[in-house]
Amino acid sequence: MRIVEFTPSPDQYVWTFGGAEPVLEVAPGTAMRLWTEDAFAGRVTSATDRPSEVLNPKELNPQTGPFHVTGAEPGDTLAVHIVSLEPARDWAASTTIPLFGALTGTDRTAGLQAPLPELTWIYAVDRAASSATFVAHDSDFTWELPLAPMLGTLGVAPALREVRTTLVPDYFGGNMDTPELRAGTTVYLGVNVDGAAFSVGDGHYRQGEGETCGTALEGAMNVTLIVDLIKGHAPAWPRMEHDDALLTVGSARPLEDAWRCSQVEMVRWLGELYGLTTMDAYQLCSQLCRSPLANVVDVNYSAVTKIHKTLLPPTDPYRGMHRLMRQRAGELT
Amino acid sequence: MRIVEFTPSPDQYVWTFGGAEPVLEVAPGTAMRLWTEDAFAGRVTSATDRPSEVLNPKELNPQTGPFHVTGAEPGDTLAVHIVSLEPARDWAASTTIPLFGALTGTDRTAGLQAPLPELTWIYAVDRAASSATFVAHDSDFTWELPLAPMLGTLGVAPALREVRTTLVPDYFGGNMDTPELRAGTTVYLGVNVDGAAFSVGDGHYRQGEGETCGTALEGAMNVTLIVDLIKGHAPAWPRMEHDDALLTVGSARPLEDAWRCSQVEMVRWLGELYGLTTMDAYQLCSQLCRSPLANVVDVNYSAVTKIHKTLLPPTDPYRGMHRLMRQRAGELT
Amino acid sequence: MRIVEFTPSPDQYVWTFGGAEPVLEVAPGTAMRLWTEDAFAGRVTSATDRPSEVLNPKELNPQTGPFHVTGAEPGDTLAVHIVSLEPARDWAASTTIPLFGALTGTDRTAGLQAPLPELTWIYAVDRAASSATFVAHDSDFTWELPLAPMLGTLGVAPALREVRTTLVPDYFGGNMDTPELRAGTTVYLGVNVDGAAFSVGDGHYRQGEGETCGTALEGAMNVTLIVDLIKGHAPAWPRMEHDDALLTVGSARPLEDAWRCSQVEMVRWLGELYGLTTMDAYQLCSQLCRSPLANVVDVNYSAVTKIHKTLLPPTDPYRGMHRLMRQRAGELT
Amino acid sequence: MRIVEFTPSPDQYVWTFGGAEPVLEVAPGTAMRLWTEDAFAGRVTSATDRPSEVLNPKELNPQTGPFHVTGAEPGDTLAVHIVSLEPARDWAASTTIPLFGALTGTDRTAGLQAPLPELTWIYAVDRAASSATFVAHDSDFTWELPLAPMLGTLGVAPALREVRTTLVPDYFGGNMDTPELRAGTTVYLGVNVDGAAFSVGDGHYRQGEGETCGTALEGAMNVTLIVDLIKGHAPAWPRMEHDDALLTVGSARPLEDAWRCSQVEMVRWLGELYGLTTMDAYQLCSQLCRSPLANVVDVNYSAVTKIHKTLLPPTDPYRGMHRLMRQRAGELT
Repeated sequence: MRIVEFTPSPDQYVWTFGGAEPVLEVAPGTAMRLWTEDAFAGRVTSATDRPSEVLNPKELNPQTGPFHVTGAEPGDTLAVHIVSLEPARDWAASTTIPLFGALTGTDRTAGLQAPLPELTWIYAVDRAASSATFVAHDSDFTWELPLAPMLGTLGVAPALREVRTTLVPDYFGGNMDTPELRAGTTVYLGVNVDGAAFSVGDGHYRQGEGETCGTALEGAMNVTLIVDLIKGHAPAWPRMEHDDALLTVGSARPLEDAWRCSQVEMVRWLGELYGLTTMDAYQLCSQLCRSPLANVVDVNYSAVTKIHKTLLPPTDPYRGMHRLMRQRAGELT
Repeated sequence: MRIVEFTPSPDQYVWTFGGAEPVLEVAPGTAMRLWTEDAFAGRVTSATDRPSEVLNPKELNPQTGPFHVTGAEPGDTLAVHIVSLEPARDWAASTTIPLFGALTGTDRTAGLQAPLPELTWIYAVDRAASSATFVAHDSDFTWELPLAPMLGTLGVAPALREVRTTLVPDYFGGNMDTPELRAGTTVYLGVNVDGAAFSVGDGHYRQGEGETCGTALEGAMNVTLIVDLIKGHAPAWPRMEHDDALLTVGSARPLEDAWRCSQVEMVRWLGELYGLTTMDAYQLCSQLCRSPLANVVDVNYSAVTKIHKTLLPPTDPYRGMHRLMRQRAGELT
Repeated sequence: MRIVEFTPSPDQYVWTFGGAEPVLEVAPGTAMRLWTEDAFAGRVTSATDRPSEVLNPKELNPQTGPFHVTGAEPGDTLAVHIVSLEPARDWAASTTIPLFGALTGTDRTAGLQAPLPELTWIYAVDRAASSATFVAHDSDFTWELPLAPMLGTLGVAPALREVRTTLVPDYFGGNMDTPELRAGTTVYLGVNVDGAAFSVGDGHYRQGEGETCGTALEGAMNVTLIVDLIKGHAPAWPRMEHDDALLTVGSARPLEDAWRCSQVEMVRWLGELYGLTTMDAYQLCSQLCRSPLANVVDVNYSAVTKIHKTLLPPTDPYRGMHRLMRQRAGELT
Repeated sequence: MRIVEFTPSPDQYVWTFGGAEPVLEVAPGTAMRLWTEDAFAGRVTSATDRPSEVLNPKELNPQTGPFHVTGAEPGDTLAVHIVSLEPARDWAASTTIPLFGALTGTDRTAGLQAPLPELTWIYAVDRAASSATFVAHDSDFTWELPLAPMLGTLGVAPALREVRTTLVPDYFGGNMDTPELRAGTTVYLGVNVDGAAFSVGDGHYRQGEGETCGTALEGAMNVTLIVDLIKGHAPAWPRMEHDDALLTVGSARPLEDAWRCSQVEMVRWLGELYGLTTMDAYQLCSQLCRSPLANVVDVNYSAVTKIHKTLLPPTDPYRGMHRLMRQRAGELT
């Protein structure tokens, strides 16, 4: 299999979905070895860093890409399989950013209270042990957390001529911040512009569901993925698949709308897979689904609907795309 | 251990939290064997039943109780451990009720569209095999679902002299509809009135997270539980514990507020357990928690924050209450 | 016309809708002269009062009532016409209460920020000039505000056996906190229990739309009203009428749902008044309505839909009930 | 005064804020006579037109512009005074678009109900009488509505390199759809890119607050405005001023967040104008403001906070910018 490698130089970082020139063209079926900078653009490095001082608000969540997928046209479905996610550093950073996060007023949930303290936690990462050390700011509490690498951001260019910040997820994917986007997951995204213009970034060495404080264990990541293309069949909202489950992701506000989008997408998918009417698929989804939140902080919130394959009749969506990509991933390693 | 048994007659069903006379007084430490009618008050029995015709809107979600817990005072913490939940019937019913459910307009999310079709699905239940059969209305699709019995409703009387319908969950618990409320779970609820006045009901033989269509596999349930009391320490929102995890439940609208309530409660709990400041507990929760939704249909929505114990330093909340109740549960069987 | 007078003693204050014994029975057509204590139960009296110290959280928003209306049955429509609202004191108080208000986190929009400062503003009221003086806390700014007396709270007992705090408005009216509830307004409320059990309270000498900080110019009020009854025709949400406009009030969360409830109620009303189909009434309402917010603080938010009568074909809703009550009000003075 | 005239040809319509080349450069102080096409891009012309058939979803809400304002830099404040809005046609159109509008599920408030009927209402406009005729679809009801011309859309290019559809309002203004944006109003917008790149469109001959059904009396408009520039002082959210009131506009979801943004902006403005601390300005705003909704349909909802000048001490914001523009407007006619 052809393997394309790409590590952006800082001047190649991209801050939007849409609007940037592709850095590479890749044919469907291509494997890629990529490197992604962390969401802080590498600017937070010490527990004494204050985000409001070291961050550049215009340069957050840098993307690696965009990549032009040969032959991708609006209405097609881009399939991206995550082969592996390997932390590229021996540390990770998490912060509280003033008026950002789920348990504080923000620029939208506007209020008059003083912001929470601005703090940075630096986690030492033991890649061999696959763990990271939490060190409390205000006591001598420390604790090892297992790594669980994931990609916060994966998306394509939006429709309607838009160019959108990489901070806000939507129907085109983007900053969904779900722990389900990990090695072994295949993402299916509707293509909105010729070439799809997909990009990735925002590696998290670990994140809770909801990304409550606004940031995860942010760190540079070595990303291996395989890209493929399904003609037509664009889903309205991102779909995902891994060996254990089918998943859909909605991103909107308020949170119930994000979740409703994911639910309607899953009802639609079940209908397609099993020939069910809407009402029967609604009933089945209601009894089978899990609903893990993804993020409740990124202006648009993201929610996941997930059904374990063991709870469903055997199915091989998109003519076995995930299965085939898993096989090809096996050939890579 | 003293075991109290109680099966309500239909004229003993209770439709509110607060406002009803206790049917029994139980001392802390008492085990109880209870029977609960389904949320339809047993009125849906056939796949041709139309909810708008057979249901009595004033008699939904009947409770078994309320029970007066000796010595419980406002500010105390009621601990209820679910020993076992055993389906009491060989069938269960799920319906779509006009203008009720998550993927339809409702009386609150008011709109002008025609309601979805009113349908009833009857599931044949094989208690030995612990499965239930989904039968599609509009095709010959059928499928076995594993049972996963849970209690939709468990709550205490509210504060502020209120009497509240059993349909709407809130800080006093109630119709939280989370699959986490299953055998093996201990619930901690703040007491608001003398005697706590707790009740249970709304057995689900299985439910997806969110209870999307508005109803689960509703069925009568044999419930075994143990009641205990912790003086003081009332949590602001329900806490739960099972062998694998600590959990908190928030119930509000919009959905982000339900989740925020559960998150703030978990941040508070982590602070208590490990002596962390708010900011350190916020950080830790952000990286560790799971956020499975409970219901997005019951006027107030319910969201859960959950942290697996394997991810936390060893802890034994409430002086080991859950552990001790588990032991006592073992003595019962 | 028969005039009933009632001033509650403090031990007669009522803190709920539903659940309290009627203090009086009144026949339809009765005029009433009532006195209402302020929402603080009279406990805030000085600019140095701290709400968290002087308020009793179990004794907020006292009601005058409830009144049993002879012959009122579930499904009927209670009509209450506000004849006059006269401030009963020469001062009014407004406060910021910790974690209450629209521009702060609350117990539902839960967060971790420190509460806003707790402050009390005492307004000197000049009843002859119909003005109140704002005195800034932190500068020498002072300014006269015109009085615009209104009732924050007017409601009936809820359905479903519920007893609800007077703090939270809903379909039964209650703490709607709209400046439209002023002298000259007739309120139409669906009756849920025999006798309706209506009560009033929470006089505001003036309030902005939204009641942003959580409290208005709170003050005791002399209230003159006329009560009447329309058999049947209970609206789903409160309707109001004054000489200039038709109005509907929705109360829910999030705010769009409160407003949607008021809009659907207005679409329904226009359909009834002019024989329009839903779609034609939807179109007409869309082009004619005003949408002034009422409160965004009372757990349930309240929003108003209002159509000026000059924009509508002549109409005389409820067989001229408002017009007739206006005439009777004229006879009172 | 220099007057620039510009009428776009259809190929000059612009569908985004940001991303388009300026059609003209204008110096601060310039008056402009512009023509704007309606939000349907002129494609709805008959009561039998079905929006899903005649509309191009990629070509909605065309803008006239963008205009490069000489010397405008990020952080500056663009002032646009609406001198006059004159309907350019003798008819206007309003429609219900499938899954768009406030009283229906949408692509975000996703659900499974069938869409509402797709209907078009054509209003005959009598410009001399300043009225438009509503003709019911399903009965012989007709009624004259007074015209109240307004601009649905006025905005500048966004920050963060974004290009945004003209359908969704935000901090940069855009499709705010408030009836307050009418002749006599001055809008103050923060500048995000060099030259500001402002544009206008979406004339409404009349609209209710909330734009419930999703569309107003849409029509082409002759727009006369004056542009000016204030160095620095960019507000976080749009501010507006007319002879009678100060106004702020927030656009977000859920609706309470849109309104909170407008409220915080007004609290900030009051603080600036009168030297009040945040808490004193919060109190004053709480008692004085009106809160008319703008739109509850445009993905982001818009809400207005408005304070009548008669309720405030005399003030002349931005060194009398509105007053001076009013004078210059007088010279134009």
